[in-house]
Amino acid sequence: MPLPTIEWIGEIDGKIKLVDQTLLPNELKYVYCDDKESIYHAIKTLMVRGAPAIGIAGAMGAVVGIKNCDAEDFESFFNEMKQVTAYLGSSRPTAVNLFWGLKRMEDVAQRNSQKSVSEIKNILLEEAKTILEEDKTICRKIGENGESLLEDGNCVITHCNAGGLATGDYGTALAVMFAAAEKGKNISVYADETRPLLQGSRLTAWELKNAGIDVTLICDNMAAHTMKQRKIDCVIVGADRIAANGDAANKIGTYSLSIIAKEHDVPFYVAAPASTFDLSIASGDEIPIEERGPDEVTSISGNKIAPDDIKVFNPAFDVTPASNIAAIITERGVINSPNKEKVETVIGNNT
Amino acid sequence: MPLPTIEWIGEIDGKIKLVDQTLLPNELKYVYCDDKESIYHAIKTLMVRGAPAIGIAGAMGAVVGIKNCDAEDFESFFNEMKQVTAYLGSSRPTAVNLFWGLKRMEDVAQRNSQKSVSEIKNILLEEAKTILEEDKTICRKIGENGESLLEDGNCVITHCNAGGLATGDYGTALAVMFAAAEKGKNISVYADETRPLLQGSRLTAWELKNAGIDVTLICDNMAAHTMKQRKIDCVIVGADRIAANGDAANKIGTYSLSIIAKEHDVPFYVAAPASTFDLSIASGDEIPIEERGPDEVTSISGNKIAPDDIKVFNPAFDVTPASNIAAIITERGVINSPNKEKVETVIGNNT
Repeated sequence: MPLPTIEWIGEIDGKIKLVDQTLLPNELKYVYCDDKESIYHAIKTLMVRGAPAIGIAGAMGAVVGIKNCDAEDFESFFNEMKQVTAYLGSSRPTAVNLFWGLKRMEDVAQRNSQKSVSEIKNILLEEAKTILEEDKTICRKIGENGESLLEDGNCVITHCNAGGLATGDYGTALAVMFAAAEKGKNISVYADETRPLLQGSRLTAWELKNAGIDVTLICDNMAAHTMKQRKIDCVIVGADRIAANGDAANKIGTYSLSIIAKEHDVPFYVAAPASTFDLSIASGDEIPIEERGPDEVTSISGNKIAPDDIKVFNPAFDVTPASNIAAIITERGVINSPNKEKVETVIGNNT
Repeated sequence: MPLPTIEWIGEIDGKIKLVDQTLLPNELKYVYCDDKESIYHAIKTLMVRGAPAIGIAGAMGAVVGIKNCDAEDFESFFNEMKQVTAYLGSSRPTAVNLFWGLKRMEDVAQRNSQKSVSEIKNILLEEAKTILEEDKTICRKIGENGESLLEDGNCVITHCNAGGLATGDYGTALAVMFAAAEKGKNISVYADETRPLLQGSRLTAWELKNAGIDVTLICDNMAAHTMKQRKIDCVIVGADRIAANGDAANKIGTYSLSIIAKEHDVPFYVAAPASTFDLSIASGDEIPIEERGPDEVTSISGNKIAPDDIKVFNPAFDVTPASNIAAIITERGVINSPNKEKVETVIGNNT
């Protein structure tokens, strides 16, 4: 039911087509990226956002970035490719999927170093398309694995957008709700608006409404009161990066929501693909948190809502400790009460 | 240092002058209210807001509402006055100070029932002015009583606006910070923007900046991450209504902030005048919570930020249980670890 967020159009001389998510819900407009600058810009300015979608955008970005490379030998080609991937990698520092996608493209190039540059370019395009197809499969599997956590009539709170728009087309946190709804369960959702960029009101509310799921919009600071006053069965959110011990970085406000859920004995679930795990970091303390500019907080749609020159602290993510997470739902299975051992068992040697 | 929020201009044929807080921080404009409809509108649309300021506005509103009454006997006069106070009381159902202010005006009228209608009108005007003067004294006393809770170099989080703009001129929660700053203590503040109406970014950040206090704006959902990452010494907020057991209703998001503060062992203080206590209600469960329209959440400054016809839950207040409150700072003293007995001791028979 969700619409494709990102696609490759044409052959190797083609381009990336993506939904400009900064214009939703007022306008459904597609953007075409034909070079590394335009896809860098699309990632940086959040036209494409959501960890898995950024991974796909990065992989396809590597293709648009090197498709016109006129190197004739592998070494020159790969040097240019590494410049492209380093450049694209600098667009969003927190999204591990971006680095994962770029590294996977580099690995494929290296594994095919004996082939001609022209052949390698086509192989890279196929790999990027494969990543997109795999993502679709993974999201459906996350939905399948998670939907049994929801019963008919359940009410969920979600934060930010971990929906189709954050992935190829089906989402991670929302996949669980989509899958439950497809099984005929009656699910209702409270969507946090998710300041400052309002992914909840602009994207999640829009997606759920389009999918025919009963959705109610709240401000982020209303979640605690909502849990106290109305029957909330669980929280389900996505993740941008998960450490080896299960600590999960996600959109700012997720940590806050996990504390509130704990206070109200509401189970807190994280839904994310295995590619979101970064087993090289022991705990969430090691996850660098991107700080963004003040304008996101001081103005909305170009309207000033704060005094001139006010100081702003604008962290884009926060870290939810594993101890606040009832389960992490992945395509490889559900990790209940996550810790280092359980993450290792399910995610294993993540490549 | 703060500016007067509300004043009476002229004699009994005069009018109310108030800062239109809906236009801040972009414009400092005054509104004049000369009849009951205009002051009802000003309260309803939050041109004047903040529990103590609403109490003053209600009392002055009773004066503009009856100043042209041509009744000649007390009974007719008082009947008309009761229609005015009932009408004004319907503008904001949660603000106990409004009812407190209106009832005080009724009581004064009744105590002077032997006097001429013209004399009673003048007595009522004097009473309304007294309420304003008392508020100024009370706010300074709250500041005095609370400032010892802050040490030099402390960093505070506050929510909504419990500043000069919420009162006659000095604030309740902000009074504590103003008083500490006036004693030469170096205080810094993180101000929650306070969705949906952004009283934190529009009013609190503006007031603190004007007063020369170091202020940093954050979104509401960033408070937990801020407590985890930076040194926060306490939270200080205002209140709209406090039950006999110390449970405090305040702007939506306050309850959430109290849970987050508890999680991080950050003391959570409520600063409010004795008039905010409603000893007729045993606990916060009995406080009715005003629900406001969806537009406050779905659009900002006239810009649509959510899909058309999306369902919205927009409670304007929530209730923080006394168990989450380290102390309530009042003009009569500080109530540590508030409960029924301690509230009774300090607030006593609240009249």
